[in-house]
Amino acid sequence: MDAAEFRKRGKEMVDYVADYLEKIDKRQVFPDVEPGYLRPLIPDCAPQDPESFEDVFKDIEKIIMPGVTHWHSPYFFAYFPAASSFPALLADMLCGGIGCVGFSWAASPACTELETVMLDWLGKMINLPEEFLAGKDGQGGGVIQGSASEATLISLLAARTKTIRRVQSENPELTEAEIMGRLVAYASDQAHSSVERAALIGGVKIKNVSSDDKFTVCGSALKKVLDEDKASGLIPFFFCATLGTTPCCSFDRLLELGPICNKENIWMHIDAAYAGSAFICPEFRHLLNGVEFADSFNFNPHKWLLVNFDCSAMWVKKRSDLIGAFKLEPLYLQHHHQESGLVTDYRHWQIPLGRRFRSLKLWFVLRMYGVTGLQEHIRKHVRLSHQFEHLVLQDERFEICAEVVLGLVCFRLKGSNELNKALLKSINEAKKIHLVPCYLREKFVLRFAVCSRTVESTHVKFAWQHISQLATDLLQTWEHDDHQQ
Amino acid sequence: MDAAEFRKRGKEMVDYVADYLEKIDKRQVFPDVEPGYLRPLIPDCAPQDPESFEDVFKDIEKIIMPGVTHWHSPYFFAYFPAASSFPALLADMLCGGIGCVGFSWAASPACTELETVMLDWLGKMINLPEEFLAGKDGQGGGVIQGSASEATLISLLAARTKTIRRVQSENPELTEAEIMGRLVAYASDQAHSSVERAALIGGVKIKNVSSDDKFTVCGSALKKVLDEDKASGLIPFFFCATLGTTPCCSFDRLLELGPICNKENIWMHIDAAYAGSAFICPEFRHLLNGVEFADSFNFNPHKWLLVNFDCSAMWVKKRSDLIGAFKLEPLYLQHHHQESGLVTDYRHWQIPLGRRFRSLKLWFVLRMYGVTGLQEHIRKHVRLSHQFEHLVLQDERFEICAEVVLGLVCFRLKGSNELNKALLKSINEAKKIHLVPCYLREKFVLRFAVCSRTVESTHVKFAWQHISQLATDLLQTWEHDDHQQ
Repeated sequence: MDAAEFRKRGKEMVDYVADYLEKIDKRQVFPDVEPGYLRPLIPDCAPQDPESFEDVFKDIEKIIMPGVTHWHSPYFFAYFPAASSFPALLADMLCGGIGCVGFSWAASPACTELETVMLDWLGKMINLPEEFLAGKDGQGGGVIQGSASEATLISLLAARTKTIRRVQSENPELTEAEIMGRLVAYASDQAHSSVERAALIGGVKIKNVSSDDKFTVCGSALKKVLDEDKASGLIPFFFCATLGTTPCCSFDRLLELGPICNKENIWMHIDAAYAGSAFICPEFRHLLNGVEFADSFNFNPHKWLLVNFDCSAMWVKKRSDLIGAFKLEPLYLQHHHQESGLVTDYRHWQIPLGRRFRSLKLWFVLRMYGVTGLQEHIRKHVRLSHQFEHLVLQDERFEICAEVVLGLVCFRLKGSNELNKALLKSINEAKKIHLVPCYLREKFVLRFAVCSRTVESTHVKFAWQHISQLATDLLQTWEHDDHQQ
Repeated sequence: MDAAEFRKRGKEMVDYVADYLEKIDKRQVFPDVEPGYLRPLIPDCAPQDPESFEDVFKDIEKIIMPGVTHWHSPYFFAYFPAASSFPALLADMLCGGIGCVGFSWAASPACTELETVMLDWLGKMINLPEEFLAGKDGQGGGVIQGSASEATLISLLAARTKTIRRVQSENPELTEAEIMGRLVAYASDQAHSSVERAALIGGVKIKNVSSDDKFTVCGSALKKVLDEDKASGLIPFFFCATLGTTPCCSFDRLLELGPICNKENIWMHIDAAYAGSAFICPEFRHLLNGVEFADSFNFNPHKWLLVNFDCSAMWVKKRSDLIGAFKLEPLYLQHHHQESGLVTDYRHWQIPLGRRFRSLKLWFVLRMYGVTGLQEHIRKHVRLSHQFEHLVLQDERFEICAEVVLGLVCFRLKGSNELNKALLKSINEAKKIHLVPCYLREKFVLRFAVCSRTVESTHVKFAWQHISQLATDLLQTWEHDDHQQ
């Protein structure tokens, strides 16, 4: 395919994507396919000779679409939102066209520099303390990671290196392995599984800190476990606080936890993957109070800020902590300017070496929506979740299971877990809307997450009426069979 | 921006990208900007109110392009190639439009299933042993990682978990920390820095294995260090073999190394990040002989197979080894089908949780180029590197520093490192072409990597004439100043 054909096909693809997104509400949100559906539909191996674009293009509807879960359907209420907007799609086209690999400043200066400045813009939008910004000569700064999991892992590894060095300087007789064996990381029992995974990868222990009846970790809970662990010779080194937990969007109490971490030489990382986008609205910014005690902070514009995946924004107070954990400098990656201290080589800030020009997406979205446009988007989602909450509360058969703060509503039928499992099953089998569940303590709970950019009040109303009807049907059957015991 | 405006702007962006790539040879390959150039060109913070697409669009040429290193210029001969092709760009547009997050089968079945089948296609193209393929019910299979660094890290972590379990079952008195403290990973002294980094992240020791005069690791070199380390109580657990090292594209001797690793219970991972694409040509496939001994294998279609970044293809013989190292199952990620054993949940195969629909790029590229089209691309690059080698060899002032096997030529002026540093400096300051250096043993060497999809014989000839002229100029000055001592 030459440039002339790309012009033609690229425009067809633009129309296809526009059609797809404009009419996505007409598609069944969750696919009908069974595992293994795709393999029989395509050849066993790649073709020897080139096929035409037409041949490939027609297979999109025939082979791909029947197996797609439509994350941008206004009937999709599962997981958390995956951001999507037209400005971000345009920026990604440009990113692909430029196709640079920005592992160092020299590998494409614009790729590095726009990222640094965009993370400053974004940091200012959520009123992050100055120390986290790169500014002209700050010690902190931001970076785009692929996912919140990577941000958590990178912080844990930086904390590990920093702690090992400190403990070794105080106790030169200890080996690195001995210190590693005594390190403990902490996170809420409501924290995302990626925190446990980061500790597994880093080869250190991790312990849950018990959350309270609001699914929140408070200072006394952390202090209790720290005291026990220190008494038994362990070395607490990392605490991952969560703002907006995945199960129910609860918020750890930074203002209590932060001072404890600072006093105990514990790296505090804040994972606000979903909730972080809301902090651009002044009325939600208080949820971030206490960030001033943190060493690193992360949220995902690719979840809720209309920047397509992947764009996970991470800031650190001291970039030297990250870089110090990983810096390796083969000659083929060295360049003229790096000794000047003026440049950022982002490869030292992340797990992979290569990186795309992802800051273009932030630049396009922040400019074409403006802060007010993005605030509107957040506020609409929060309004819709409260609308759903209100509908649930009006129905005595149901209960709300956690405070609705942002765009997530945790609810269930009053009754057994089995009853609620059956309800979820009937919802997801009907495939008119899509939800996923969680456990809150021992309760099986349905999560209603406001997700799509185009979701409106009518979709929420429809979803509730649908759920309510399925509940009615279910309860009728349920009363007549032995499940009810 | 609504869908109607996206149709218009998307088409303008298609034309912009087509124009950019069609006329990229007219742009200076390496930018003139100094560190910090971008910040003064844009506002201090995001705009409150939306800006128009026109405003953003005109800033691309004004703010971004002056700071771009043009990786797809036919005058770019630095690092290794970054793949780019029109079919891949089209697929990425579709990927962005669908915008699903494929962390589990249920999150978008097509995203998972196409990936599994595409990795089978690709595996067959390089004639990977059947055990690495997923087939219908194989134990192996492929996955798309973001980068070779992640593939190396994931393999090292899987090996670490497997070894700790084995050693613990044999020596129940040992703690995990004690075992970790004795684990050693190995790689060539020519291996990529990401291998050392993986060991740093995994908290295990890593040792270099000496390469021979061809920059190749042979069996005896590995055996020597293994014997020493076992004698001193260490536990060798992981060896990363390289096919196509970054400095000079040398190849470790798999047929000697593989049996040693198998016998010693050492996980052998093969990093063929750059060279792997060449194995689709029968005449280069012999370089992969010995892969049958490996536990995992990786190469980057995003380097040399015309699939835009990121698309790093990784295969394992036993997927349970990867999954076993990481599997965590919160309820909100569980789904109906996963107990059936029929489905793949790729989140267990990788560091991040989220993932884009990257297999679309492979599908588009493999079909629209066909195997023959991709073979032509590889062969053209190899032909051009031999053309450059030939030109160098005709000039007695220069020497070739390593065997030219694929698309990389390592060369230098006969003389001091300082002389060659000065030559590279004059080349990169002229900015007509772009190269990066490496060290081979103590020698400072220039790397000429054939990179662009559109590079032709004329560009190579131009590059050589330019280098040759700069060498002449340099040698004249050099003879008249004190550098010559």
